[in-house]
Amino acid sequence: MRAVDIIARKRDGQPLTDDEITFFVEGFTRGAIPDYQVAAWLMAVLLRGMDHRETVALTMAIVHSGQQLDLHDIAPFVADKHSTGGVGDKTTLVVAPLVAAAGVRVGKMSGRGLGFTGGTLDKLESIPGYRADLSIGEFRRQLATVGLVVTGQSVDLAPADGKLYALRDVTATVQSPPLIASSIMGKKIASGADGIVLDVKVGNGAFMKTEQEAVGLARLLVEIGRGVGRKVRAVISDMSQPLGDTVGNAIELREAIDTLHGGGPPDFRRHCLTVATQVLLLAREEDAEEIAVSLEKLLDGGAAWSKFREWIAAQGGDLRFVDDPGRLPSARLVRPLLANRPGYISGIRADIVGMAAMLLGGGRAEKDDPIDHAVGVALSAKVADWVEEGQPLLTIHANSEARLQEAAEHLLAAYQWSDTTVEPPRLTHQIIL
Amino acid sequence: MRAVDIIARKRDGQPLTDDEITFFVEGFTRGAIPDYQVAAWLMAVLLRGMDHRETVALTMAIVHSGQQLDLHDIAPFVADKHSTGGVGDKTTLVVAPLVAAAGVRVGKMSGRGLGFTGGTLDKLESIPGYRADLSIGEFRRQLATVGLVVTGQSVDLAPADGKLYALRDVTATVQSPPLIASSIMGKKIASGADGIVLDVKVGNGAFMKTEQEAVGLARLLVEIGRGVGRKVRAVISDMSQPLGDTVGNAIELREAIDTLHGGGPPDFRRHCLTVATQVLLLAREEDAEEIAVSLEKLLDGGAAWSKFREWIAAQGGDLRFVDDPGRLPSARLVRPLLANRPGYISGIRADIVGMAAMLLGGGRAEKDDPIDHAVGVALSAKVADWVEEGQPLLTIHANSEARLQEAAEHLLAAYQWSDTTVEPPRLTHQIIL
Repeated sequence: MRAVDIIARKRDGQPLTDDEITFFVEGFTRGAIPDYQVAAWLMAVLLRGMDHRETVALTMAIVHSGQQLDLHDIAPFVADKHSTGGVGDKTTLVVAPLVAAAGVRVGKMSGRGLGFTGGTLDKLESIPGYRADLSIGEFRRQLATVGLVVTGQSVDLAPADGKLYALRDVTATVQSPPLIASSIMGKKIASGADGIVLDVKVGNGAFMKTEQEAVGLARLLVEIGRGVGRKVRAVISDMSQPLGDTVGNAIELREAIDTLHGGGPPDFRRHCLTVATQVLLLAREEDAEEIAVSLEKLLDGGAAWSKFREWIAAQGGDLRFVDDPGRLPSARLVRPLLANRPGYISGIRADIVGMAAMLLGGGRAEKDDPIDHAVGVALSAKVADWVEEGQPLLTIHANSEARLQEAAEHLLAAYQWSDTTVEPPRLTHQIIL
Repeated sequence: MRAVDIIARKRDGQPLTDDEITFFVEGFTRGAIPDYQVAAWLMAVLLRGMDHRETVALTMAIVHSGQQLDLHDIAPFVADKHSTGGVGDKTTLVVAPLVAAAGVRVGKMSGRGLGFTGGTLDKLESIPGYRADLSIGEFRRQLATVGLVVTGQSVDLAPADGKLYALRDVTATVQSPPLIASSIMGKKIASGADGIVLDVKVGNGAFMKTEQEAVGLARLLVEIGRGVGRKVRAVISDMSQPLGDTVGNAIELREAIDTLHGGGPPDFRRHCLTVATQVLLLAREEDAEEIAVSLEKLLDGGAAWSKFREWIAAQGGDLRFVDDPGRLPSARLVRPLLANRPGYISGIRADIVGMAAMLLGGGRAEKDDPIDHAVGVALSAKVADWVEEGQPLLTIHANSEARLQEAAEHLLAAYQWSDTTVEPPRLTHQIIL
């Protein structure tokens, strides 16, 4: 078998055999197939596509490129959730302890933010002491004792994915459903989850811009997981405006803490309950309505909050900072952005808000950029709200006057207006079983 | 300007600007853009295509990647010919001295054989002493004194082409009209030819399998050349069966020498006259009929042969071997392959014959493989001929019994048969002006 022949077959639009896909991924992982051959192959895959069988084979080749966790000595069922990335998406911070409080173990390996989307680990690292570099042994122990662990991707699991992603990033081959799906599911399957809820974001602030694309990806993800014996559901959720009222790191963490105390923005709370309900539906044969009611009780009664504290403490986080979120990193400059006209807000471009948060220093343009946990944006109004001219649209939290000015200009351009009433966007577009 | 953005634009089927193409080729040539980004870009170009303007820009970027020869201090008009590669294609060996004998200077940088197609330099190197590594100074001097020079591609001319080709070869991105056309024309333009005749082969023994593909490539080549002020014509010629009666190196050289003595197989002689006529039509405003008549005289009267000897001697070749071709490398085993049925030959798969010659050791599977100049195949009959069962179809010249057996099996399978008369294939399909 020769790499060049496999590239040629995909170039010509032919399906590859499982053996050919394994040969390619395995050869790349151990350095026998050079970057340039893989780059040409990735472009051929992006432009020619892969069918369902090929995508499963690619996923499993990624899984088999490293260790595979088996967590069944710890619990019969371990849940995971994964978001395809959005703006203001702090869902894991609430859903993970909420689900764990309901008695379902959550073991999650998470990523960092890139471009206009934020990363869960960056938000957690606003808490001094929080460790996101647990060993596999530590991951297993905490899953057993606390029932909840959220750490960085282990280099021992699915190493092919890291290598492939680095190459895709510089060869314009990120945006391919089979490559995206195999990357997500390869990591999830390798990390031992029995049940996985996929939060597939759709809209201008997500990688998938249309519902059709999002549903296509969600179906693919669900089929792959089910094909290898995992329970999987996908929630197609709105990312046409930011989720909740905050975009940043410490600022989003504060909002998550509010939500764990029974408060928080209504859209964000609702989304967390939707995702958590889907996780519990994978774990138990129960009624969705009953689950939702019990989850609200866990949120409002403090059980989720207790589990959150237990989790953060187990990973080294200083609880004084979550018990008094005022101590979390704060920006030097806090300034409102005022509406330049009256009207109903008909759109808040999530991608522009995300990019503005990145400009402020809260996100990364390149993978190894440092981030400023303090900066971000807090929205005062959302789509469908009426705002008078001169009223605040949002508050900018910045550590540099120049960056604040630049972000303000972008942010003002993120707003679309209407003189007549506007319907708020649907929060959950579909559930894919 | 970032390489990844240029890749993305081509991936999405957008035309690239001249500046983007120059940035990419220039960056690759000096090592600033890595192989893997170029590999992804090449695959995007192959699958998305390039328009005429882009292809010209790519060609000129290749030209500008190195030195450009200006030969006008030597002669007002220097001709070149280029074949896209075929089986039994020894045309240059006759056309170059024939055209030079007619008073038109020929300065040609040539390639080596790869895969089932042979290379002119390999055939010339059957002559002990022949040097294919002339410096640019030597190239210019011989063009001035002899009026004819054929050497290897100079590394100082169009270096981007060599780098690009090496990468295309291992990334399954050879078969792309804009990449093929810019590679051919980039080298030709850099080497200073004023007039270029392109011998575009079509058929199973060529890279272009259909007349439509061949005509498309030929038109592209002619347009590129004309766009930068060169005179260009293309001959679309048959490669559904081998050209002439021999396939190999020394064995093809002997056939070329026969032809230069006024003999040789009728199809090969006719093809040489066609190509030489097109070269003279570029150099002079004359009547094609008159040119053809005068060229036949130069062949039959010995003038082309004299020019051939002068050329070979100037490049260090030992004339005793061309004056007595029996002294050229000969194979140890010479054995006929007999027809296993009577009938009219309706096809001789040139690709299979070429592959058999390669198997015998006369060609290269990989770029740096050594070759055996002695081995090859001599056809006793061609398409449209009647052959009795047990009559020889061809003679195999081999240096290994095992390889001879293997080649014989392949060769027998190269023949197609008919019980009724068959028309021979048209030798010249079209002339593209």
